[in-house]
Amino acid sequence: MTPGKFITLEGIDGAGKSTHLRWLEKELRSRGKTIIVTREPGGTPLGEALRELLLDDNGTMHAETEALLMFAARREHLDKVILPALARGDWVISDRFTDASFAYQGGGRGLAMQKLDSLEQWVQGEFQPDLTLYFDVMVEVGRQRINAIKPPDRFEKEQDAFFRQVRDAYLERAHKFPRRIVVIDANQPLEEVKESLDKIISSICIC
Amino acid sequence: MTPGKFITLEGIDGAGKSTHLRWLEKELRSRGKTIIVTREPGGTPLGEALRELLLDDNGTMHAETEALLMFAARREHLDKVILPALARGDWVISDRFTDASFAYQGGGRGLAMQKLDSLEQWVQGEFQPDLTLYFDVMVEVGRQRINAIKPPDRFEKEQDAFFRQVRDAYLERAHKFPRRIVVIDANQPLEEVKESLDKIISSICIC
Repeated sequence: MTPGKFITLEGIDGAGKSTHLRWLEKELRSRGKTIIVTREPGGTPLGEALRELLLDDNGTMHAETEALLMFAARREHLDKVILPALARGDWVISDRFTDASFAYQGGGRGLAMQKLDSLEQWVQGEFQPDLTLYFDVMVEVGRQRINAIKPPDRFEKEQDAFFRQVRDAYLERAHKFPRRIVVIDANQPLEEVKESLDKIISSICIC
Repeated sequence: MTPGKFITLEGIDGAGKSTHLRWLEKELRSRGKTIIVTREPGGTPLGEALRELLLDDNGTMHAETEALLMFAARREHLDKVILPALARGDWVISDRFTDASFAYQGGGRGLAMQKLDSLEQWVQGEFQPDLTLYFDVMVEVGRQRINAIKPPDRFEKEQDAFFRQVRDAYLERAHKFPRRIVVIDANQPLEEVKESLDKIISSICIC
């Protein structure tokens, strides 16, 4: 049996991740793969409960608490979903994984990257995705895709500053792990992003 | 302003912790201290929500997930309750703290103590309670205090084995940190435990 592969999709909101995830899933299924689609935070009943707690937070949660909860959900996700699927030979596509912790809690919230390195090591040892597709989009483009096109208000400007830090941290991760993380220019129209993605899928050795 | 002090109470169920906590609180209040009573897991709205998730688990949760959730709740507990109270000069009494993670997830569930050391360092650095009262009780005595006195069934025997490991780990912690952790023989009748506790409170320099 060919061992399964683990593919993660990363990017800020508005990068088109969800659309591309569905397309990637369809493409891989058409090549005969058994595909498990999952997400973080989430992917297990506990993980989804933690996702609620994380999303319901009114902004007072300590950045370290947030990181610990993300990695707790991830530990369970690995144990109950990802590792068993890979062991069966299935392919797993996850909407976000550990790079998102570096981007959001590290870049966005300013938690020291070295603290995230040590949690990553604690939870997953040397385990890494086989391939990470990072959909890179300028913050303004991402926001305009989500909202109506209008000038940002003060709150949105603050959000933009946060997401710019998230994006910078994603780009740093991509620079640090060039073999694992493929950067896809998601500022292009969706059809063109699909074409880039198609070429990547066809060329990568994992198929 | 005299800085506040942080006292933690530890022990397996049936050790009489709750009774002694109330008595300790009363004693310290009568000496003019402002006392914050709290507990782990819990102590904050997030911590209480995590407590529910931990207690509701049907036994499938990975021991590492459990440890990460405990420390996530603890990070928030420190940030929102313990450290601000100590900074105000209040005294904090917590029904369980980090020693419980070593006893339950380490001793009980077999997680490597060195992994717990590294989480402890990650979350609290060098911060430790000023005093830990460990109420040591034999597993059978603790169980009999909780249940009616009857021979244990198979499930209770399994539980007993678990709690023996928890107790052993507590005793190891006490051996490792003899200046911080005071072991109180809680096999004695409650009145005698109170007397021991009274002597300890009177003799310790923190009052």
